[in-house]
This record gives sequence, structure tokens and C-alpha cells, in this order.
Amino acid sequence: MSAAAASTNTPSELAVPTNKTAHAFDKSALDALLLRRFFFAPSFEIYGGVAGLYDYGPTGSGLQANVIDAWRKHYIIEEDMLELDTTIMTLADVLKTSGHVDKFTDWMVKDVQTGEIYRADHLVEAVLEGRLKGNTEARGEKAKEVKDEDPKKAKKKKNVKSEAIRLDDEVVTDIEYILAKIDDYNGPQLGELIRKYNIRNPTTNNELTEPVEFNLMFESNIGPTGQIKGYLRPETAQGHFVNFGRLLEFNNGRVPFASAQIGKSFRNEIAPKQGLLRVREFTMAEIEHYVDPLDKRHARFQEVKDVVLTLLPKEVQQEGRTELTQMTVGEAVEKKVVDNETLGYFLARTQLFLEKIGIDPKRMRCRQHMANEMAHYAADCWDFEIQSSYGWVECVGCADRSAYDLSVHAARTKASLRVQQKLDEPKIVDTFECHWNAKDVGMRFKKDAPMVKEFVSGLEKEKLECIKKELAEKGTSSVQCPDGKSYDITSDLVKVEAVTKTEYMREFIPNVIEPSFGIGRILYSLLEHSYWAREQDKARGVLSLPSLVAPIKVLIVTISQDPQLRILIHDISRKMRKIGIASRVDDSSASIGKKYARNDELGTPFGCTVDFASLTKGTMTLRERDSTSQLIGPIDTVIEVVHAIVNGTMDWQAASGKLESYSGVQDVE
Amino acid sequence: MSAAAASTNTPSELAVPTNKTAHAFDKSALDALLLRRFFFAPSFEIYGGVAGLYDYGPTGSGLQANVIDAWRKHYIIEEDMLELDTTIMTLADVLKTSGHVDKFTDWMVKDVQTGEIYRADHLVEAVLEGRLKGNTEARGEKAKEVKDEDPKKAKKKKNVKSEAIRLDDEVVTDIEYILAKIDDYNGPQLGELIRKYNIRNPTTNNELTEPVEFNLMFESNIGPTGQIKGYLRPETAQGHFVNFGRLLEFNNGRVPFASAQIGKSFRNEIAPKQGLLRVREFTMAEIEHYVDPLDKRHARFQEVKDVVLTLLPKEVQQEGRTELTQMTVGEAVEKKVVDNETLGYFLARTQLFLEKIGIDPKRMRCRQHMANEMAHYAADCWDFEIQSSYGWVECVGCADRSAYDLSVHAARTKASLRVQQKLDEPKIVDTFECHWNAKDVGMRFKKDAPMVKEFVSGLEKEKLECIKKELAEKGTSSVQCPDGKSYDITSDLVKVEAVTKTEYMREFIPNVIEPSFGIGRILYSLLEHSYWAREQDKARGVLSLPSLVAPIKVLIVTISQDPQLRILIHDISRKMRKIGIASRVDDSSASIGKKYARNDELGTPFGCTVDFASLTKGTMTLRERDSTSQLIGPIDTVIEVVHAIVNGTMDWQAASGKLESYSGVQDVE
Repeated sequence: MSAAAASTNTPSELAVPTNKTAHAFDKSALDALLLRRFFFAPSFEIYGGVAGLYDYGPTGSGLQANVIDAWRKHYIIEEDMLELDTTIMTLADVLKTSGHVDKFTDWMVKDVQTGEIYRADHLVEAVLEGRLKGNTEARGEKAKEVKDEDPKKAKKKKNVKSEAIRLDDEVVTDIEYILAKIDDYNGPQLGELIRKYNIRNPTTNNELTEPVEFNLMFESNIGPTGQIKGYLRPETAQGHFVNFGRLLEFNNGRVPFASAQIGKSFRNEIAPKQGLLRVREFTMAEIEHYVDPLDKRHARFQEVKDVVLTLLPKEVQQEGRTELTQMTVGEAVEKKVVDNETLGYFLARTQLFLEKIGIDPKRMRCRQHMANEMAHYAADCWDFEIQSSYGWVECVGCADRSAYDLSVHAARTKASLRVQQKLDEPKIVDTFECHWNAKDVGMRFKKDAPMVKEFVSGLEKEKLECIKKELAEKGTSSVQCPDGKSYDITSDLVKVEAVTKTEYMREFIPNVIEPSFGIGRILYSLLEHSYWAREQDKARGVLSLPSLVAPIKVLIVTISQDPQLRILIHDISRKMRKIGIASRVDDSSASIGKKYARNDELGTPFGCTVDFASLTKGTMTLRERDSTSQLIGPIDTVIEVVHAIVNGTMDWQAASGKLESYSGVQDVE
Repeated sequence: MSAAAASTNTPSELAVPTNKTAHAFDKSALDALLLRRFFFAPSFEIYGGVAGLYDYGPTGSGLQANVIDAWRKHYIIEEDMLELDTTIMTLADVLKTSGHVDKFTDWMVKDVQTGEIYRADHLVEAVLEGRLKGNTEARGEKAKEVKDEDPKKAKKKKNVKSEAIRLDDEVVTDIEYILAKIDDYNGPQLGELIRKYNIRNPTTNNELTEPVEFNLMFESNIGPTGQIKGYLRPETAQGHFVNFGRLLEFNNGRVPFASAQIGKSFRNEIAPKQGLLRVREFTMAEIEHYVDPLDKRHARFQEVKDVVLTLLPKEVQQEGRTELTQMTVGEAVEKKVVDNETLGYFLARTQLFLEKIGIDPKRMRCRQHMANEMAHYAADCWDFEIQSSYGWVECVGCADRSAYDLSVHAARTKASLRVQQKLDEPKIVDTFECHWNAKDVGMRFKKDAPMVKEFVSGLEKEKLECIKKELAEKGTSSVQCPDGKSYDITSDLVKVEAVTKTEYMREFIPNVIEPSFGIGRILYSLLEHSYWAREQDKARGVLSLPSLVAPIKVLIVTISQDPQLRILIHDISRKMRKIGIASRVDDSSASIGKKYARNDELGTPFGCTVDFASLTKGTMTLRERDSTSQLIGPIDTVIEVVHAIVNGTMDWQAASGKLESYSGVQDVE
């Protein structure tokens, strides 16, 4: 599959074979294959393993390395981004400022007898859904089709047995209302629900404790004294923000530009399930694109404006509907469905990337966050959701984080994380200035004082004008600061005065638009989308991974155990590996058919077979995994062809022109 | 520089320009450059930073990504290794078994007043060296040339003021003896030395506490209960070993084969100094090669037998000498200087790799570990040391870890980590069998019982025979087990009986040969080796990084600010990036000379300049960083040439054939 072909907006042939989706998907068969072929396995398996930790084997790591390499080329190289590699071990202060120490938490409940721990919201949701289901059964109604269920729901259904008990109509209405806004409840509120509906541990029927807050960051200490507290980063983003000053300098002081980082992040999940979709250690690839808040256009938007996205806007969801709209990015931005060009640009580029690595475009959608889902500071946020047997799962988040992170770090550290722009000509401006009563501000707002002063003084003209008015009228004005809290500014603390001044420079804290990729979730989705079974042999799985990302590109086998042929295949393999083609020899005594079957399970796109003609005529056959069609030609020509296909400069059709078709070898034995 | 050229054993031209070493090395100038051009900087710098934690900027991460990519191609792809990506968060049990929980420690002492913390061995060493120096001064002798000093010594000298005080001859002899074996002292012994020589905190002259043991692993808890203890891995190796069973199966049950992993590891150093050479979080690349203990030959040894190594064998060091011997790997293995072919193979391959990425071969050596340095189980161990301003520093370790790790994990978990080999024909063997008195063994050795039984029962015939003899004569026999401890086996615990049996299979735990790379140390050494200043302009630094690893391959500039030319350079840059060439545009108003200077500091091997001829004739010039020589040709031809050079299929000489030489543009302005 040529990279060119893949980077159009239509699925490339090899990436999504038409026959692939023809069969019902068998998850247990795929799971067995992934373990048998060591794509991944539980970490420390021989020690019993630990939930939420997985090791990638040769196939999984190879696939991951190729996806990451494609990501680096697609984003960092092609878009000239500034790459970073910042530490995983993070100073507690940094994550205190970012809000993670206080807000990066889940609520958990314990079984009072067994001590078994559940995530409070997941449990309440599961139990109440079970009761609705039981009610439906009791009333002999047909269970409602649950659309687009997210992985946790999909999973929990299994745990929760629903008894056929009829509920009063108003109870049903209440429960439906609660489930609709389940993500909005805090710990105490979840506690009330647990009491009100007498919710117990579904497995033991024991009572549960009050919900307790649990921070999801792994904690540790740096150095021997135990005085420096650190956390394992929950995202790579903060590592970008604390380096913004140096990045801006590296970019000659100009925006827009983007920094990018690929690395491990950690979340100490309360009760992780669902394989690679909810893990405690995972690889992320994050881009932080810094833009002028007054100008979020993108220089290369024209190049992607015709890319078609499948959208699920917030308005639709708020009406409880889920139908999808197809629209070009150009149209979406023009109609303000997507907030700005830069956000739209990254949605389009991400669509192209996911297709390039083999995600089925028919099972991708961009879902916009609803108001209640977004962080208070976020301007707009879209998730790339990929559909798998777990439902629609967020795999890439594209958020406009506004100036929040840079503002709070600047306020906390006094580092200037501002962009200075020389104005073409000096500008006479009527504006407002804040004169603070430093002492009283300090006494009133304590540690928050610098942040409040920095933030308020930096507000635009209009805001300052209305604060001035409020102070004059009521003597007080309430301002919401980046930390999400509101502060009452009173006239004894600050004088806001109208001034006329000449500006030579413009200063601003840039906004940040962040595409954030969960590599593990993408990999798992890709494996499901690539998996199918052959018509003639259902038990025989095939992973139709594009050759761009396939962990091994070529399998090399011989038709017989003849020593000369055995030497030959090792020479061919070495030749290929020397020019960077990941190839594997299978010189076991298994039949060709068995070897091809193994090969199909490894997602290896090509197979080369040598026979005695190879010794006499110097030829070798080339088999394409998905079609099982075969070509034949001189060994070196076949190697050239494979090299070209793997580098994306040739596709199978072109290859068929360079080599003769062949039908000698039985594929199945 | 063509990859082919680089993978010979002689330094390639671009990698080590002859003029490069001509100038005295100015470390402060390099350090300033590395920070100014954001190769790396202290993590959370705006929060004051934390010792031993560094972030890589765009240049540093680009360089690292390219070195890692070269490593993956050189080892994983070309040698068909099985890649792994195992978790950083590691179950405590695993590291208990491996010995890290008990033995991965350093001894520290505290200043009784200030609480300042030092590594005990480093401090004692520094103070005693200071006294020897003072004695030398007092006697008016010339200070002895310190050869091959290691980084910590180089550093500490600076901290410790030496007063010119004369010491008695026997005191001098004692101190010299102590310093010679300083690495052998444990905590209590260091405590004695501190008291005997009244060693105090050199900066405050306060007394010091007794040495306390400190484990160098970062500790954390997995999950919400705090009951599952975890550590951040101190090496990636254990992640390979616990997966050995699956790896062996993946390889169809055969050895030899190798697994490889690139990833972050952590060491909570007591008082890290020396920049990237001693850090708390670092990227490693580790290979675990599994071989038959009875056959450590390597199939591809012939390919490297003529590679010349610079060796410092243990015998030489034991005589206190340091002169180096040059020898081919073939000769070294034949003469048993290097223990076996596999170890020799990896030494040669590593030599080739380090040269390929630009390490100066004249500043590399293989130093063999002396008996007292090696882990008790290690058969042989060689460090690749690279010379920098910090002295000779270990950057790659090549150790034969024997069967230790697999044995202890197998014993602890009961997982069979053994290889089974079908014998060509059944074999009648006279051997010995152990019949254990399970109950008593359990009572005697408690938790170690399974390990002792597994290990003793698995001993070869000769060992078992002499144990049988000892038991018969003395009723007891002492056996050293893989955990390093000796266990007294008594005749009431086990009967060792001669048996004759027919063997159809051979079973063994493979030995492990481990090349382990510290990527950060290699990067820093590479930067020092690549740094030089131009004859005509000492202040102007140049990093002669090979184009294989240079973070940015091409700088694109225009001679004037003409808008058409500005558009043109962005088009050219986009064209290059689309085919994967990392290029940067500099359209700032700085002079060409300044732009080239910046470019030289970034280690960018090529510069492309467009002028008005580019618009009329469609030509562009190409500048080579080290020679500053320039060529000119059609824009697309220049792009092709750059692409070929960057992919290692063309060198500058060949390029000079494809393009015309050019001398129009002044390099320095």
C-alpha cells in the first residue's frame, strides 16, 4: 500500500480489504491469537500479573514502533514540530499548579466486609442500569437498543445480574435522569445515591462505604531525604508547558509553532479492566500547538480543507441523538461547527493519519465534548472515537486548552511565558490600568494573590472597563480566574484607571491546541479492524495490517528441507534486513500451508518461497497476504519490489507489472 | 557520509573531520551552546529544577530519536532480534527475586549539623585523595599524573580543597592501599575509615553520621489499597527475563536468539552531578542474547572477526597499568582474551555502531571488569568506555550474566524457563540423582529451599559426584547457589545416587549475554567528540554530527527578504519534509553568515541557499557544514542529492560529481 494512496481520504485497498468485514467478528478468537502470537501479555505473568499492566511482545512492539515512526514522520518531520523528551518523574509543585494534585481523582467505595474496591460512579451506573433492565424484563418489554455504549458500560453489564423486578414509573424516570448525567455527580452525591437506592456490592450483596476520593497519580520521592515529592506524569503535556520559554526562544520568539512528545504516562486506575483500553501505564503522543488567541487560522489549512470528517456535534448529543454528519473540514469550520481552522486542521490530519495506519474510516467519528464534559477553561474539544467490540472509544483528543496552563505556570513561577510582537507602527490606545494595594491583596488572597493580580491586570480592555464600573457602583466585582475559582475584587484592593498610551509591542500568552493520542488504544482498535477469517477456513485468522505498520514485512520459507535451500533463505533474509526490511525465516518442519497460516496471524503482508527452481533459475515467489495471489521473478527483483512496496513507493498492482503471476504452490495443505 | 562507509572499522570523513580535534576543547563553550540551542536543560527549570533530571529539547530529542532509530536498524532489524516493550512500573516481588531490593544500594552519610548528604564511598575517596595531594605539595614533589580518571573523581577534585600537610610514609602507603580498593568497602567499613581518618564534611568541617544503606530504586504503590508494592525498574533486563517463556515459544523453542528493548529506567541517585552522565531517569537500550551454556559460538562471527578493538584486559589493570592493546576480535577470542564468540561478536558490532553514529574511534576502549568488579555470577564482562572531558566513562556494558536471572525467576515462580533439545539419538548416561527429604529441607532452608533443591539437582555430573563423596566422608557439603550464598547440604537432607538412564531430551537454562547501552551517556560523548571551533572564528562552535543522526539535516535560507524567495524556501522545505528530510527554514532578518553559524551550532550538515537565480534559472546552492564548500544545481537535483546523502546511499564526494562547485556566497559576513 503506497503512502501516497493511504494519505488520501479514501481507505486504501490493502489497509481495509473488502472481504475483511464480511465475517462476524469473533473476539475470543482474536484474543487467543494476540496472546499466542505474543502481541501483548500481562506483565510479570509468571508472578501472577497485575491488573492494568501489559508487556508488548515482538509483534506488539514492532507494530507500536512502526506506528510511532509513522506518527513522527506525519507530524514532527512533515510539520516541522519541535520534539521534546521530558522526564516522567515530575516535581509535585508542577502538578499542583496544573491542578492534577487536587483534581485528578476518582471516587471509590469499599465493600465493608471483603474490602473489595469499586469506582463509585461505575458501580452506581452499573447497578441502576441493571435495575432498568430488570424492570424492562418484568414488564415483558423489549430491552432498548443501547447505542454507542462506552467500554466500561459494555464491560460492567457482564458483572451485574439484572433481576426481573418491576419499578414504578417515576422511579424509572428518576433513574433514567440520573444515568443521563452520571458523570456530573461528585463523591458525596454518589454516596447519597448509594443510600437512596440501597446500592450494594453486586457480587457479595454487602454494604458499601461512603465514597472516598483517590488521586490517580503514582506518588514517589526524589532523592534520599524524602523531602522532594514527585509523581509519575499523568500526561506529557506539562513537560511541554514548563519548557515553553525555551521553545519560544528556539523558534525565534514567534508563534504559531508546535511542540510534540512521544512517551509513557501513568494513571493509577482504581480497578482497570478491558485490556489495552484502560491501563495504568501507557504510551502517549501529544502535540501542543501554540497560537495567537486573536488569530487561530492555520497556514496549511487549504491543503486539508476537502478532507471529509464524520462528526457528532454537541447539539445533537444534547438532544439525546447520535446520528452522524459527514462534512468537509472546510465546511465544518466555515459553519462554526468546529471552532477554528487550527482545530479543524488537526482533525483532518488525524483522520489522514489513522487511515494511513489502517484504521477503518467507516468506524471512526469525531465527537464534540458537551459543555459539562469540558474543563472550565477549554474553548472547544473533539474526541476521535474508534468503534470496536467495546463500543465507541476515545483514542485521540483534540482540545483547545486556551491559555490556562501557561497562565497558571507563569503566575506560579514568575517566568514570562508571553509572546512579544513588535507592532508595525506604534499604536495610541485608550485602555485601563490596575493599580494594586499590594499589602491588602496579599492578606486577602494569600498564595493566590500573584495569580489574581497577574490575571486581572492582563484582562482585555472591555473586561477591565466593566470591572471599573462595578467597583464604582457596588464597590466590588467578582472575577473568575484560571484556577476556576471566583474572586471578589473590592475597590480598596485596586484602582482601575483609564489611560492613554502608545504601544510599540503587543504581549500575549498564546492559546494551546492539543491533539493527544493514546497509542495503546489505537493499536488495539487497529488489531480489531485488521482481523478477519478466511472463507475456506474460519479457524484461520488473518491480520490485514498495512505493510507500513506490519511488525514483520516478509516471511521467507523453503518448499523443502534441502540444506542448500535452507542456506539460501537465510542469505535472502540477511540481504533484506541489511536494507532495513524486517523479514523472518521459518525453517521449521511445518508445511508451507501452516507457515502461511502462522504468517497471516502475525499480519505479515508478504511471503517469499524458494524451491529448486531458485537454485537452477534463481527465481523466488512472492505471496500477498490478503488476496493470497502470488507472483514470481528473479530473487533480487523480488527483493527490490518488496523494498519499494514497504517504502510506500509501489503498490501490489504495480508489483504485478514487474513480476509474473504464479499459481504453482498450494496455499493450504 | 554513506552508511556503508561508516560501517567499516575506519572513521568516516564527515563523522570525524581531521580539523576537529586540532583545537583545545572548551567545555564551558560547549555547555553554553547545548543550553542555548536547547539540546537539553534541567527539568522544571522554571520551578528551580531537580538534580539528576533533564529534559531534551528539539535538537536533543531529534538526535536521540535518530540514534535510537540507527540502533534499532543496526541490532533489532539487521539481527532479527525479538523486540519488547515491558512496563516501567515493576512488581516488587520481581525485583526481590533479581536481588535489586536487597543489593541495589549505596551507602550515604549525613552532615550531623546541616543534614547535607554525601555518598560515603565518594566522600572518603575524595578526602583521602585530597590529603595525598596535600602531602605531595608539602613535600614539594610534582603531583602524579592521574590516568584515566573516572567522572566522579574528576568532579570531586574540584570540591575538595587540599591543604599542604605532610603525612608519614606509612600513612601514605595505607591511604594509597585504601584508594586502590575503595570500591570493595561496605558501609560499616567506610564508617571505620571515617572515624580512623577523622573524615568530616569538607565544606562545613562538621562531623558525619555512620553510613546508612539507601536503595536506589524509586518506590511506589500500585492500585488504591497500597497493598501492591512496585518500583520503577532500574534496568529493562528483568522485563526480558520474566517473559522468557513466551519469547522462547515465539522462537519455536530454539536458542540462540536475542530479545531487545529500548526504554526509560530509573535510579534514585543520592547526589547526582556531571550532567547527563549521572542522572535519575535515563533511556537504555538492552539486548539479552540467550545461548546454550555449552556452545557460545555465534553464527555471524566470521562477518566481524577482522574488526579491530582497543582492549584493556583485566590482567593489565591488576598490575596497575593502563596501556591499551589493539587486536582483531578474531584474535581476541582465539587467545581467550575475550571469553567467547558471542561476547566478541557483540563487542565488534558495538564498535561498528558507535563509529557509525560518530563516536571518535580513537577515544573508545573496551575495558574488562576485574574479578572484584563483577557480580559473583558473571562469567566475563567488558565495558565500552568513551573518553570525554570527564575521563573514560562506561557507556555500554557487555556482560555474560550466565544462567543467574533465569534460574532465580524459575526457582521463585516454578515457571519452566528451560530449553528442551531433542537428542539426535537416545543417549545412555551414567549420572547422579538427588533424592530430597522434602520436609527437612523446607525446615532447614525455609523460603530458599526450592531454589537450593532446583539448583543442586540441576548441577552437572562431576559436581554431584563430589557432593556425594563429601556427604559420604564428612556428612556435609557446602554449595554456593545463584543467590551468592553458600548452603550446607547434609546427608540427612539428600541422598545422591548413581543412576544409569537413557536420555532422549536435553534440558538446560540458557546463559544470557547482555549488551546494555546508556543512550544519554553516548549522546553526551558524541556531542563532545563532534564539537570544535573554526580556525578563523574560535567563538563560533561547530557540531560535526554525521548526517545519519543530525537532528536537522538541512537549513534553507534566502539571500534576500524578497517575498517570492520567502515563499520559495517554504515550498522547498515542505517538499523535503514530505519525503522525510528534517529541514528547517530560517527566514529571520539575520545575515547569511549568522544563519550558517546558528546552523553549525545545531549540527546541521547541509545548508541550501536560494537567490534571484533560483527564480530565473531554478538553481539552489548546497553547503557542506564541515568543509563549508558549496555546490550548485537545479533545485530538484539538489533535493535528490540531499535525500541520497541522508539515506546513506551517496557521500559528499559523489555529490560533487552530480552538482557544480560554487563559490559565490560569502560564508562569513
